[in-house]
Amino acid sequence: MDYINKYVEENKDRFLEELFGLIRIPSISSIAENKPDMYKAAEYWKKLILEAGADRAEVYETEGNPVTYGEKIIDPSLPTVLVYGHMDVMPVDPLELWNTDPFEPVIKDGKIWARGADDDKGQAFIHAKAFEIMVKNNTLPCNIKFMIEGEEEVGSPNLPKWCADNKEMLKADVILVSDTGMIAPDVPTITTGLRGLSYWEVEVTGPNRDLHSGLFGGAVANPINQLAKMIADMLDDNNHVTIPGFYDDVLEVSDDERALMAKAPYSEQGYKDALNVKELWGEKGFTTNERTGIRPTFDVCGMWGGYTGEGAKTVLPSKAYAKISSRLVPNQQHEKISKLFKEYFESIAPDYIKVNVEYLHGGPSYVCPIDLPEYKAAELALKDTYGKTAVPVRSGGSIPIISTFEEILGIKSILMGFGLESNAIHSPNENFPLEQLFNGIKTIPNFYKHYADLKK
Amino acid sequence: MDYINKYVEENKDRFLEELFGLIRIPSISSIAENKPDMYKAAEYWKKLILEAGADRAEVYETEGNPVTYGEKIIDPSLPTVLVYGHMDVMPVDPLELWNTDPFEPVIKDGKIWARGADDDKGQAFIHAKAFEIMVKNNTLPCNIKFMIEGEEEVGSPNLPKWCADNKEMLKADVILVSDTGMIAPDVPTITTGLRGLSYWEVEVTGPNRDLHSGLFGGAVANPINQLAKMIADMLDDNNHVTIPGFYDDVLEVSDDERALMAKAPYSEQGYKDALNVKELWGEKGFTTNERTGIRPTFDVCGMWGGYTGEGAKTVLPSKAYAKISSRLVPNQQHEKISKLFKEYFESIAPDYIKVNVEYLHGGPSYVCPIDLPEYKAAELALKDTYGKTAVPVRSGGSIPIISTFEEILGIKSILMGFGLESNAIHSPNENFPLEQLFNGIKTIPNFYKHYADLKK
Repeated sequence: MDYINKYVEENKDRFLEELFGLIRIPSISSIAENKPDMYKAAEYWKKLILEAGADRAEVYETEGNPVTYGEKIIDPSLPTVLVYGHMDVMPVDPLELWNTDPFEPVIKDGKIWARGADDDKGQAFIHAKAFEIMVKNNTLPCNIKFMIEGEEEVGSPNLPKWCADNKEMLKADVILVSDTGMIAPDVPTITTGLRGLSYWEVEVTGPNRDLHSGLFGGAVANPINQLAKMIADMLDDNNHVTIPGFYDDVLEVSDDERALMAKAPYSEQGYKDALNVKELWGEKGFTTNERTGIRPTFDVCGMWGGYTGEGAKTVLPSKAYAKISSRLVPNQQHEKISKLFKEYFESIAPDYIKVNVEYLHGGPSYVCPIDLPEYKAAELALKDTYGKTAVPVRSGGSIPIISTFEEILGIKSILMGFGLESNAIHSPNENFPLEQLFNGIKTIPNFYKHYADLKK
Repeated sequence: MDYINKYVEENKDRFLEELFGLIRIPSISSIAENKPDMYKAAEYWKKLILEAGADRAEVYETEGNPVTYGEKIIDPSLPTVLVYGHMDVMPVDPLELWNTDPFEPVIKDGKIWARGADDDKGQAFIHAKAFEIMVKNNTLPCNIKFMIEGEEEVGSPNLPKWCADNKEMLKADVILVSDTGMIAPDVPTITTGLRGLSYWEVEVTGPNRDLHSGLFGGAVANPINQLAKMIADMLDDNNHVTIPGFYDDVLEVSDDERALMAKAPYSEQGYKDALNVKELWGEKGFTTNERTGIRPTFDVCGMWGGYTGEGAKTVLPSKAYAKISSRLVPNQQHEKISKLFKEYFESIAPDYIKVNVEYLHGGPSYVCPIDLPEYKAAELALKDTYGKTAVPVRSGGSIPIISTFEEILGIKSILMGFGLESNAIHSPNENFPLEQLFNGIKTIPNFYKHYADLKK
């Protein structure tokens, strides 16, 4: 596909400038005061889609952040691909660990360094440019629709309703998503499973005010000690979650499938070295890839209480807090797990404290069969670029909305991502190698070609 | 002692204005940027002592915050009283829980509301004014020395050396301190025991960077979960501290003394109601007063890690921290306990995390026998004001420097405080009832009178 390479070469600098403009908008969906930036990002996407060649594009209001929708319908009898991506990003703290300004992208060592460089501004941008290439070269073989939302990082609370309200407009044969990763830069990967998620904030209250730890220490329960104990009690000695019923609906994976999974390239020493840990950790009886792919988890994402400033303050605090999440696997229902967690957490709270559990967000897990024509099209397109057959993997991450799409719109999603583990998404110094970006832009037009062929 | 009452009545408003001037200086010793305020407070104390009638007063430099020293020697053959107090205060966060500006004192409901109103600006100020009363009325029967330090709330790290360097200057028969409390406004109290303290900060490191909790969750130890477990493991089911050797040196109190202690007025329901807790908590086998008075503790004063901002961020953090303190009882050595803690904490750390333990500060415990003449003088002076014999109590709090005085200067301290539990020291809305302040000012001159008589 020489015309694709040629077009990319000729427009590289402009592509990067356009992406950088998007990245510079600090569209952090979990911080209320950044709301105006969500609108800036939505308008930016509208312009990207229109300039690439869409018939129309609009910024749609929701109860929360806006959604940018655009489309080009070349022939209603041809297959229709709905591209999904998100314009919102994660918070950037701890800011002091960034080597550069998270919202001022720089290119260094062949990578773009910025929040959103990969997740998901860089990856979603691939589709805008692939679309442009096909339009400008008259090779678009399918109808195309774009749905770029602004609340993915907070669990897409308003997209399900928006999808339901716009079901007719969103009609398509497949949803194409780049928000996942590849095993390595030379190992094309299609994600066939995603974990679900439940996320809670808990508040533990001891005495009604901060107390002098000398005058009251020993007489009154300390809410931090108590919360620590409750958290510790959520995992047993085998690192199984102790919430009753937590594993009841977990889809057990067959020994055959586990054997196939074990063939994915993996170096335990390399994994440990990359994280600088002496030993890995996790649920007994499962390999590392199984623990992140097919098993649910229980992690504290944040905890705070008492005096956290400089030096020493002797205080017996009134309150302690934690943000806690569970990654869930196919067949576990996040609403049910949240209910089980809340009931259990409240049940293990002793009488000398009060607890409050708030459900922050959640989403279901997802599985994609590998015999679908849309899967085959992705496999062929990746082979065109990389010369290898893609590896199907079960990812530990969550894109809660993917299952919801299937539920509401009745459409399967193809998760064809170009991220790498080293891209540090959600972390300081997020980055995206230029090679991944441009390989992505070159791969996607071939997906459309193969998909149109397979659906003929 | 009519002249005392008369003098207080005539000078009340000025006394309050002078105290308010001291309180308005935000002399928080644990915050480095407030250092200039420590010097302002030291100069303010110099002025207070000089204007009250001292022969001389100076601000002395130390490696840390300054010490204000002043004296009036009327006759070297008379007994000498060394007044100890501190000019530094605790931090004020959480600021949002204060009803008024912590450094702008207001009088409401008969109380002064401000940080330091009680601990220890208000209480130390009592001694400046009692001194003034005796000087202005020619009734001072002893020599008097003042030592007001600026690092009590951070464990007095530099005062021991300063005392050792100035041992001759500090020579005295007794150290008089108001930095403790009374059981109730009508129950005069002398504190005969203080708990010691060890204070540590621990850092737990898991992976070398914040990770995506989906991609890595289940495969890598989460430092918050791990720290929670380690903290939980520090107390057993009976709420005994599990550090090996922790209780080895605890001075067991005889059944007779425990029976005497049990006679102190105490209402468990009232105690619970005041703190709004359903149940009290603590070490099995000991009463509330025993748990705060004669038993050591293990409390987390602060804990933090991961994402603590608004909304949900799915992160598997790299680090988690806690500030931890143990209150210690007579015969426990804080250096030894710190060593035992560090060794134990490091020993229970599993291989998938790294831990670092930093010793922040500590101090020994203290006991004062009730048959000393200085104790009797305090008892008589309190009886003059309150018409009742003072109750001797073992306080749960720590004034680490008190034992050090005995060690370095060879002088016992009398802890004759006028605080109340409801004064909320170290907490938001610290306050000091005007009645306690003025009763204190009226009581102290009688201490000097009785002490001079008893030493004749």
